[in-house]
Amino acid sequence: MTAVGIDAIEIRTGRLKLDLPGTFAPAQGEDPEKYTKGLGLNASSFPDSYEDIVTMGANAAHRLMERKGLTPEDVGRIDVATESAFDNSKPVSTYVAGCLEQVFDGDFHHANKGERKFACVAATQAVDDAYNWIRAGRSRGKAAIVIATDTALYARDDPGEATQGAGAVAMLITEDPNLVEISAEQGYGSADETDFLKPQQQFPSVDGKRSMQVYLARMREAVEDFESVAGATHPDDYAYIPYHTPFPGMVRKAGLLGYRHMIRDTSVEDDLADEIGRQPRREAFDDDEAYEEAIREYVDALAETEHYQEWYAATVEPTLEISREVGNWYTGSVHIARASALRDAYEKDVDLEGQRMLVGSYGSGAQAEVHAETVREGWREEVEAMNVDEQLDRRYELSFEEYEEIHDAHNHDVDSDVEELTTPDSEFVFDGWGRMGERQYRYVE
Amino acid sequence: MTAVGIDAIEIRTGRLKLDLPGTFAPAQGEDPEKYTKGLGLNASSFPDSYEDIVTMGANAAHRLMERKGLTPEDVGRIDVATESAFDNSKPVSTYVAGCLEQVFDGDFHHANKGERKFACVAATQAVDDAYNWIRAGRSRGKAAIVIATDTALYARDDPGEATQGAGAVAMLITEDPNLVEISAEQGYGSADETDFLKPQQQFPSVDGKRSMQVYLARMREAVEDFESVAGATHPDDYAYIPYHTPFPGMVRKAGLLGYRHMIRDTSVEDDLADEIGRQPRREAFDDDEAYEEAIREYVDALAETEHYQEWYAATVEPTLEISREVGNWYTGSVHIARASALRDAYEKDVDLEGQRMLVGSYGSGAQAEVHAETVREGWREEVEAMNVDEQLDRRYELSFEEYEEIHDAHNHDVDSDVEELTTPDSEFVFDGWGRMGERQYRYVE
Repeated sequence: MTAVGIDAIEIRTGRLKLDLPGTFAPAQGEDPEKYTKGLGLNASSFPDSYEDIVTMGANAAHRLMERKGLTPEDVGRIDVATESAFDNSKPVSTYVAGCLEQVFDGDFHHANKGERKFACVAATQAVDDAYNWIRAGRSRGKAAIVIATDTALYARDDPGEATQGAGAVAMLITEDPNLVEISAEQGYGSADETDFLKPQQQFPSVDGKRSMQVYLARMREAVEDFESVAGATHPDDYAYIPYHTPFPGMVRKAGLLGYRHMIRDTSVEDDLADEIGRQPRREAFDDDEAYEEAIREYVDALAETEHYQEWYAATVEPTLEISREVGNWYTGSVHIARASALRDAYEKDVDLEGQRMLVGSYGSGAQAEVHAETVREGWREEVEAMNVDEQLDRRYELSFEEYEEIHDAHNHDVDSDVEELTTPDSEFVFDGWGRMGERQYRYVE
Repeated sequence: MTAVGIDAIEIRTGRLKLDLPGTFAPAQGEDPEKYTKGLGLNASSFPDSYEDIVTMGANAAHRLMERKGLTPEDVGRIDVATESAFDNSKPVSTYVAGCLEQVFDGDFHHANKGERKFACVAATQAVDDAYNWIRAGRSRGKAAIVIATDTALYARDDPGEATQGAGAVAMLITEDPNLVEISAEQGYGSADETDFLKPQQQFPSVDGKRSMQVYLARMREAVEDFESVAGATHPDDYAYIPYHTPFPGMVRKAGLLGYRHMIRDTSVEDDLADEIGRQPRREAFDDDEAYEEAIREYVDALAETEHYQEWYAATVEPTLEISREVGNWYTGSVHIARASALRDAYEKDVDLEGQRMLVGSYGSGAQAEVHAETVREGWREEVEAMNVDEQLDRRYELSFEEYEEIHDAHNHDVDSDVEELTTPDSEFVFDGWGRMGERQYRYVE
């Protein structure tokens, strides 16, 4: 069976940066370590006033197509995943295609364009759709572009304000891909949950505590479902485990629980038994409460072991590096975690070809998806071509007052006219509204 | 290759009915024939105050699962297509699954749930995703449920008000289906258009004239793209041609232009040459304007031929019968056109097995999709099991004053408390808002 997967990735950050410990914490009267240590975040990305989900998505797709030498005729499918849509009918993918047609010869008139919504998991669903379309033999040899794009803003003074972010990830899905092959096996954990929603509103209503519980419960279900078709998972099977990263602190919890799950009934559990005992088994306890308390104790002890810490430092920690500097990108989040892992291997000169990753996506509401990816021969060249560090470095650093203004500029309920803080250069920009209330875009040379 | 397609369909109409010539026309001071002859509509369906896109979708899926003897474990995928979503993050499919879990044993925790948005074409895209998922070998023998659900309301006194409607279509996508096999070949016609949109608003902004032009242009592109992989289409190849039906008058135009396209360079064109001449060819004219005028004349003459009228009456007209009584259901529209065609064959006792249909979906913004379907052995039994006529007959008929109230009840910007006009019976109903602004549902015995 020919491999199908991700051939190339482009990351596009919003052009502004909010320093969380340096600027946000003092203005909120908070300890900077709440951000850096608690949440695991150093900074957030924000869009300038001429940026939005369309410009970020189109700019990522533009670089992707240019770099890979693609014309519109090479693309059979453009799917956008977002939870920041500004129209209830017309999909963002049509705006993105309209932008790209301004700069490429030819058009996307025979490409299937779509939009998916399911909190942060939708881009993984769109990658799956593209994968299935190729496997189903309907792609006519063309590639799919999947774009995750969001402006993940919260109402001012909402607890989520510290985890904001904005950016897009464009992925090229092809046969015989350069970067990673995606496994046919996948697992789902999914339930009707009220943890995070946006009922007729731009900014979310969040039950933070519930949201963390749901993340862990659905992710566990998804791993078990994955194991039912792919066989038991083992920590040594995966070079990296990129998770959905609302903030790195969340992944710290998920990593620990995932590790406990994977080592159960393995030699790793045996090796650790002298140090911290074996994992509690339900049948040894009279009631759920006592069992859960024992599990908590075991997990706390596990977190302190060298064994776990080494695994976490090698397998999970490197997936968080970009996230720490940009905040939550919603649909793009798990995809920057994967990119972060690959960049880590590149920097450490690891021979990653043929090694596997276990990728865990999640969206509130709620659904987790887990699948495996096998790194392909061309991965190094693809990672080298990404310019995410350059983009992060050139962000304009906001003062707190500027942050307040730019938050208003992106608030649909506030009528504001904010001067741009950066100068657009070789990119798509928002260019005002048309007569039917549609957003318009142009390319700035 | 095993057949993949639609195994079963359930249609769920809103429980209220607005008589267009009898009630709406007099209140608007309009000639009733504007509706019946011009638009081709007799009535619109509306949701009662306890109905919405979730209840209609869940009620359709409930009957589908009961009738087919399915348990939640038999379902690997639930996708909802809508342009009437009430949450920017949490998908309607999670609410639908939550409803179904109230009445079935077991759960959908390992089913992939999703939501697609692209005006009226999204349900066809979701059917495609399900088809590809099965063809890609990832379905583990499970079925997909695809639900098209919309409350297609316009602002009061908008020209679109006459074409409103509300309802859901649930489709079961399986291997070896009872109803129709879907062709691997498909064609797309797609462009970034500003014909119909809902920028941060519930009711659409519409450029009616542009919207009709775009519908015809994209549909033509899609047919040509389909022909590039499936070979030339011919009017005799298809027992029925269900199109997206915003109102039947639109399909009348599309049918005529489609026929002209299909008979070009065929014996049908030759047979008609004595009566109306051959089709104008661009090369015989000095400029586009003269050519287009000649095409218009040819098409007008074609419309009057017995040949065309017989074809239209047999192939297109029967697809409009349900639409005439319910109005536009947006994402569900092309799917009730297919159901209407199958019901026609059932009523006329046609031997439809093995015959083909050409299905043309469309969404503003804009994209058309065309594919073929082959009717399967079990079609008669499936059509017999649909209860759409019974549902249409039992609708409560609105007075104009009640219509005004119920329009307000479904307007997100109006705070109204409207008494229900019908009594829920063995169905899911809207049950008020939860603490985070989420909509809640319960099953009424």
